[in-house]
Amino acid sequence: MWLQREVVLRARRRGFHLVTDEVLAALPELGEVRVGLAHLFLRHTSAALTVNENASPDVRRDLAAWFDAAVPEEAPLWTHTLEGPDDMPAHVKTALLGPSLTVPVARGRLALGTWQGIYLCEHRDAGGPRSLLVTLWGEE
Amino acid sequence: MWLQREVVLRARRRGFHLVTDEVLAALPELGEVRVGLAHLFLRHTSAALTVNENASPDVRRDLAAWFDAAVPEEAPLWTHTLEGPDDMPAHVKTALLGPSLTVPVARGRLALGTWQGIYLCEHRDAGGPRSLLVTLWGEE
Amino acid sequence: MWLQREVVLRARRRGFHLVTDEVLAALPELGEVRVGLAHLFLRHTSAALTVNENASPDVRRDLAAWFDAAVPEEAPLWTHTLEGPDDMPAHVKTALLGPSLTVPVARGRLALGTWQGIYLCEHRDAGGPRSLLVTLWGEE
Repeated sequence: MWLQREVVLRARRRGFHLVTDEVLAALPELGEVRVGLAHLFLRHTSAALTVNENASPDVRRDLAAWFDAAVPEEAPLWTHTLEGPDDMPAHVKTALLGPSLTVPVARGRLALGTWQGIYLCEHRDAGGPRSLLVTLWGEE
Repeated sequence: MWLQREVVLRARRRGFHLVTDEVLAALPELGEVRVGLAHLFLRHTSAALTVNENASPDVRRDLAAWFDAAVPEEAPLWTHTLEGPDDMPAHVKTALLGPSLTVPVARGRLALGTWQGIYLCEHRDAGGPRSLLVTLWGEE
Repeated sequence: MWLQREVVLRARRRGFHLVTDEVLAALPELGEVRVGLAHLFLRHTSAALTVNENASPDVRRDLAAWFDAAVPEEAPLWTHTLEGPDDMPAHVKTALLGPSLTVPVARGRLALGTWQGIYLCEHRDAGGPRSLLVTLWGEE
């Protein structure tokens, strides 16, 4: 079984956001997969995907704080400044976090750990909606 | 061919640890795969997986030293401190390294380079055993 | 359909390099895949793969500048210095960026976003040619 579908994640403010429910809502066919994988690919270069704690909002805030401090907007490093001060830091953060995730599927569900959630890491101040290409494959 | 199996990695102290042999020992069916992939997914948010040098223990020590310096425990950034000073840095390090690996399989073996080994990156002082979900698929 | 092939990326100087065209040229069979995935795996521990902006060379230069500043050659951290001052920083950068990419394939093409390109991140001063193992699978 193969399924490939674009999911448009609604625009979010800069920061780390839990999107597990939004992804699941777009994949009703997940329940038919006995064993397989779901590949999520963000088709952008200034936002990323990761997996992290799904409970405390503090974790998402602190993640954003660390990345903003480690990749500052005002730095003598940057020469690519034409698209705004948040653009080049967004490219670096995206490289650090990565554009994709592969999550195992078991008995019709994403086999995430108890505390794991899927994060959209939005690095632009006004990134707009984000295109996520989901590919699901496995055995029914 | 599809195979999915939980492998419990034994508890390790904080640091970077080679686990290639432990993963291989849990996958005797690998020898049956002519061409395929092995996906390793750590079901936690304070430990990660990566691939790096399999020879010198210095590399693993220096990796830990860099990550500890880049993501310090004592930092005014952190608000999520309830679970101990090593917890929030562990979430950041996990985001930087990622929870999963996909390794190609060729002629019944992981097609790692000569110097590549699979690392468990344990970021907690007392993380305990770690649940790794392995999915193997390909052609026999 | 399964295809697995080694692609040797020609030697490049230290830095971030667009290699999308070089990868595509090695995969003429891509056009036969209706829906699938391409997995790229670099069989090294001092070079990495990522996806980032395919247009401005400034982005690639600034990415290199940030990584060089964040993981400096001259640092009291390093004990693994036998293979030269660029070696241990190369291992850390590789851990941060990762050795592999999985890119969706749709209607015979890599389903990259408009601005996305595949990067070889070469972290050694004289890394030489790099072995990339490509695995392609999907439905024809």
